[in-house]
Amino acid sequence: MNRYGNGGISLFTCFLPKVEFGAGKVNHIADYVKGMGTKAVIAIDPYMHSIGLGDRIASQLKKVFIESVIFSDIEPNPSCFKVDEMAKRAKAEQCDFVIAIGGGSAIDFGKGLAVMVNGRGSSWDYTERNDHEVLRPGSDTLPLIAIPTTSGTGSESTPFSVLNNPALKEKSTIVNERIFPRIAIVDPELMISMPSKITASTGFDAFAHALESFISLKANPFTTMVSKEAMSIVVRNLPEAVANGGNVKARENLAWASTLAGAAIAHIGVTLPHSLAQPVGGMFGVPHGDSIAACMVNVLEVSWQSDLEKFAAISTIIDPSISSLTLRQRAEKCPELVSRLLSDINLHVKFSTFGMTENDIDKATSIALTGYYFDIECHPKKVTREEIRQIYKACL
Amino acid sequence: MNRYGNGGISLFTCFLPKVEFGAGKVNHIADYVKGMGTKAVIAIDPYMHSIGLGDRIASQLKKVFIESVIFSDIEPNPSCFKVDEMAKRAKAEQCDFVIAIGGGSAIDFGKGLAVMVNGRGSSWDYTERNDHEVLRPGSDTLPLIAIPTTSGTGSESTPFSVLNNPALKEKSTIVNERIFPRIAIVDPELMISMPSKITASTGFDAFAHALESFISLKANPFTTMVSKEAMSIVVRNLPEAVANGGNVKARENLAWASTLAGAAIAHIGVTLPHSLAQPVGGMFGVPHGDSIAACMVNVLEVSWQSDLEKFAAISTIIDPSISSLTLRQRAEKCPELVSRLLSDINLHVKFSTFGMTENDIDKATSIALTGYYFDIECHPKKVTREEIRQIYKACL
Ligand SMILES: [Fe+2]
Ligand SMILES: [Fe+2]
Repeated sequence: MNRYGNGGISLFTCFLPKVEFGAGKVNHIADYVKGMGTKAVIAIDPYMHSIGLGDRIASQLKKVFIESVIFSDIEPNPSCFKVDEMAKRAKAEQCDFVIAIGGGSAIDFGKGLAVMVNGRGSSWDYTERNDHEVLRPGSDTLPLIAIPTTSGTGSESTPFSVLNNPALKEKSTIVNERIFPRIAIVDPELMISMPSKITASTGFDAFAHALESFISLKANPFTTMVSKEAMSIVVRNLPEAVANGGNVKARENLAWASTLAGAAIAHIGVTLPHSLAQPVGGMFGVPHGDSIAACMVNVLEVSWQSDLEKFAAISTIIDPSISSLTLRQRAEKCPELVSRLLSDINLHVKFSTFGMTENDIDKATSIALTGYYFDIECHPKKVTREEIRQIYKACL
Repeated sequence: MNRYGNGGISLFTCFLPKVEFGAGKVNHIADYVKGMGTKAVIAIDPYMHSIGLGDRIASQLKKVFIESVIFSDIEPNPSCFKVDEMAKRAKAEQCDFVIAIGGGSAIDFGKGLAVMVNGRGSSWDYTERNDHEVLRPGSDTLPLIAIPTTSGTGSESTPFSVLNNPALKEKSTIVNERIFPRIAIVDPELMISMPSKITASTGFDAFAHALESFISLKANPFTTMVSKEAMSIVVRNLPEAVANGGNVKARENLAWASTLAGAAIAHIGVTLPHSLAQPVGGMFGVPHGDSIAACMVNVLEVSWQSDLEKFAAISTIIDPSISSLTLRQRAEKCPELVSRLLSDINLHVKFSTFGMTENDIDKATSIALTGYYFDIECHPKKVTREEIRQIYKACL
């Protein structure tokens, strides 16, 4: 073990896109797009568009002689075919760059557009799957500006675009450095209106990104630093933001934690909680953060013994008052402390809450093992198919 | 005060260039330069060239059909006129991108080349001064790959190029995002041969970047996270690397800390220790880290009362065993603890060590107040001209 507690991994890649952080930053967008071209395609969440944000941004661009086309017909879990269709329109409109505004879905959509305006075939062909030849985004991928309006997915600091294929009823992800946002404008004022339930769900997603990257076998000195900071901020701010959405400082801190947690998973991905949650999320259309909340504590229960130092560190970040306990005692407390956080944000759910039954376990297990194999491999506790089944069972 | 202890600064910009970190990474350079062009100009420290590193890299590029021109005539504190001259040659050779290999000087030189190959006038015209109209690097600035062979300056993660003007006997700095390295290849194996004295001097420079950015009035959540981590790593690894240069793990940790500390100063700069050291460094040709070591403890002595929380945090990072002392006691210990670090690395110097006398104080004070005004403004303790004179006197 080296000083980073990562067992000596000393080869890694890290990167953080340019982040313009702070309340009101979105009003300076015209300063940030210089040199990107003369026409933007704005991919915006329909609700955010309905309250005027798309037009506000378009009119700011107009002042610096940048035209824009607005696409606001973006569903949750955006369809790859919709991306393809809209990319054709953006191509016909000769758009030079993409501005994506919204939660994870709008930013995923925008990243897909950035690839497909000059791409070939379908955006689905660019997703990482072993059942097709994967196309890679070219140097003609459009530059992208990401403006998150929820804090959680961290999509503003990742090179991931999750797309849904309604024909196959499956989701897959484009993973490529060319879809790192050129600039992330993280403006906490845009998040003030997030309802309490969504604040809890997306905030817990950010916590999971931080925790999962922290325990990952691929953790490196960059991700370890960032993951710890992000966990610490979420724990100290999420309960307050859930209880009192108007607390700007809590919103601000969570927005920053979410961007950090995104940066942590950007190069190393996640681990077992996401791997088990994603299949259920896809099968039952559950909010992403809720599906992770449903299995996190159970995963921690079977995992803490696999790396006492790291799980003890998580416990101490959540509750510094336990620092005098032994390493093992602290590690063992990890599931209970995360469970307490879930209580504090009213997010105690089970997979059965979403309609999952024992009959669904085989299917979910198969999807997890085929579609999320890589993330399972990075989890510190090795799990067999049978163990995965057991965890699902315990989460019902 | 907010949770970051920065008094509520909530607007900031952050960015980390892509870092390829780890022993042996330099051997994969051909993978990293894809799409940058067909001809590189390699600006390399003369010693590193003499041991074959330039040719090794050129032959790796050749395998992927990239030609290169090698410039190894790079002096410490590179002259702006030399940059101009070499840029003309690189332009004539139709070079598409720059690879800079060496300590701070070679990377400063390479950044100057990146600007000047397609630039106008002299590189000096691009430096930030209030006695001339500053030219700004254009979008035709060449992409740059930085490969540090010392750990300290952090130049691989900053948008700064420090150039010397021998006609004026002054140094100035180009500050522009366009000279952020496109990729930093941080390969600790290249640093193994650094002599003990240089390890101490450059390592202390990295510590100073971390400490000064931490106490800066412009500190933000990104820099605060990064500065703390960098300080912690330097304190735990520099004495060992100075004593035992062959300790690869210590070299590795210091290389990472140096890159982090560079990222901390990249957007917010430094504070009083650098501001007082730079004029003396210029007047007497002192190694950069030594000049900072000569004044750091004295600056801390007059500063710790200005922000008890931050100076206490520094003390606790250096020596966690003092965490039970009061805030004030911990802050007060800061100068002594940094002085102990300097003893541990055999770097106890004074400005008089370099030949400075009382007669030089007025000139140094004037240069500090005109050339390093911005950094002095960011220092948490406001200092008058007379106080600066007093600090210089105490450092003789
Ligand atoms: Fe997630
Ligand atoms: Fe320095």
